[in-house]
Amino acid sequence: MTDFRHRTPLEVRFRDIDAFGHVNNAVFSSYLEQARIRYLLDALEQPRFERLPLILARVELDYRAPILFGEPIEVLTRVDWIGRSSIAMSHELLAAGHLAAQASTVLVTYDYDRAKPMPVPDDWRRRLAQVEGRSLERPVPTGVTT
Amino acid sequence: MTDFRHRTPLEVRFRDIDAFGHVNNAVFSSYLEQARIRYLLDALEQPRFERLPLILARVELDYRAPILFGEPIEVLTRVDWIGRSSIAMSHELLAAGHLAAQASTVLVTYDYDRAKPMPVPDDWRRRLAQVEGRSLERPVPTGVTT
Amino acid sequence: MTDFRHRTPLEVRFRDIDAFGHVNNAVFSSYLEQARIRYLLDALEQPRFERLPLILARVELDYRAPILFGEPIEVLTRVDWIGRSSIAMSHELLAAGHLAAQASTVLVTYDYDRAKPMPVPDDWRRRLAQVEGRSLERPVPTGVTT
Amino acid sequence: MTDFRHRTPLEVRFRDIDAFGHVNNAVFSSYLEQARIRYLLDALEQPRFERLPLILARVELDYRAPILFGEPIEVLTRVDWIGRSSIAMSHELLAAGHLAAQASTVLVTYDYDRAKPMPVPDDWRRRLAQVEGRSLERPVPTGVTT
Repeated sequence: MTDFRHRTPLEVRFRDIDAFGHVNNAVFSSYLEQARIRYLLDALEQPRFERLPLILARVELDYRAPILFGEPIEVLTRVDWIGRSSIAMSHELLAAGHLAAQASTVLVTYDYDRAKPMPVPDDWRRRLAQVEGRSLERPVPTGVTT
Repeated sequence: MTDFRHRTPLEVRFRDIDAFGHVNNAVFSSYLEQARIRYLLDALEQPRFERLPLILARVELDYRAPILFGEPIEVLTRVDWIGRSSIAMSHELLAAGHLAAQASTVLVTYDYDRAKPMPVPDDWRRRLAQVEGRSLERPVPTGVTT
Repeated sequence: MTDFRHRTPLEVRFRDIDAFGHVNNAVFSSYLEQARIRYLLDALEQPRFERLPLILARVELDYRAPILFGEPIEVLTRVDWIGRSSIAMSHELLAAGHLAAQASTVLVTYDYDRAKPMPVPDDWRRRLAQVEGRSLERPVPTGVTT
Repeated sequence: MTDFRHRTPLEVRFRDIDAFGHVNNAVFSSYLEQARIRYLLDALEQPRFERLPLILARVELDYRAPILFGEPIEVLTRVDWIGRSSIAMSHELLAAGHLAAQASTVLVTYDYDRAKPMPVPDDWRRRLAQVEGRSLERPVPTGVTT
């Protein structure tokens, strides 16, 4: 099992809570986004996230337990593999130490000027593999080409 | 192919847009939530959503195209199947007529007082099958028991 | 008393509701923002709001009644006066026909390139006075220079 | 001049940023809300905010400078005075050390069961005056009775 080397601590805001008294399901995606950004800014040493040539293509999110106001949160993040123009990440979201959600996402490196996907820069591959301390080659072709 | 019988029109708010100039990825989940609620309130003729014994257990979301401020949105929603204590729904999110996202979700019927899953009420099965105009039996066991 | 000529209908989303079961106070500001944008896009016939040289400088918001999920909302908007580089607007927020909030805001016309306030364009003064059907001269100097 | 004894540090999230590239104006209200809650939970030693008999009645917010992604934020909070059934607070919002906004708010102590305002509990008066280290009597009647 691959473990996580990157942790993003977060604080639940009152605005995150919905009428059920728990953190709303959509807010989990904002927590993941925040962790993804922290990870990439840390790993790629880029100054501004909104300049990165990236698009979120897919999210899978399994909700395991509700999160309550006041609970400390941390999001564990890792890169699973890097394809030609895609990066797969996964996350565990811990609230007060218990597992609140698991997620996997696929990002696509995207050339906004040409409006089409672009290869993941070699420099990124090197830096991300260095952060993870292992090869990030895509394990087995799965039929999904990105 | 199964089509969609339920449509929820939505309006993009300026607050939905992020620094990239598009509707933020987490807001797609709020659009789905709104459509899910409309569907269930319409189908189950319940007065208040937050009283329904339901938990969102899983979301899969494929982002197909960005959504811009001012584009009219509609979310197509259907129930795919009903398990013992779970309901699978899927969605297509259209923005200005083009496909912006596809999603599938699993809800669990949950007894909040006993803090455990409960069977989907027979009345719900009947009403949802009626809305969809077809059998909602779970197609083939998939190993995921909910 | 000056009445309102511009109405923005809005729909409460489940995400707007907080743990108290009402629309969260911050969401009122998003409703006002949406109405302000609709007003300005309608009046100024501009294609994209985020290109307008405007900054929100001040908001006063009086909460009169809670807003519940499912209630139809409309925001009434008018321009009260136009100063050298400021525009004062006011709003009434109606939920299910009752007054839920009153607000007044001040916008500053701002030259982002030069990073300083700029005079309200003459064309805007003309168009806004036309929409309101009255003079929009600032009534009496109040000591606040913007 | 009265200074601030209570500080709430906050982290800007990517979701807080809007199409202009700054923290959206409505999010400032969520920052204030978070600070207000921290203050009250700290001062009143209450376990759960949503149980407190309080309603936000009024907000005045002056936006002084934009807040950018990544800037550390702190919200300074104090109680200005306590009326019969109202509590006036004020805030300064600092981003990267500079003043980003000033705000004043009025809360009303509200008996949800009877659906009407209730007197501020004596215990609250004592605790809040203790936190502030000064008398919190309302300075001069202003014609606004709450």
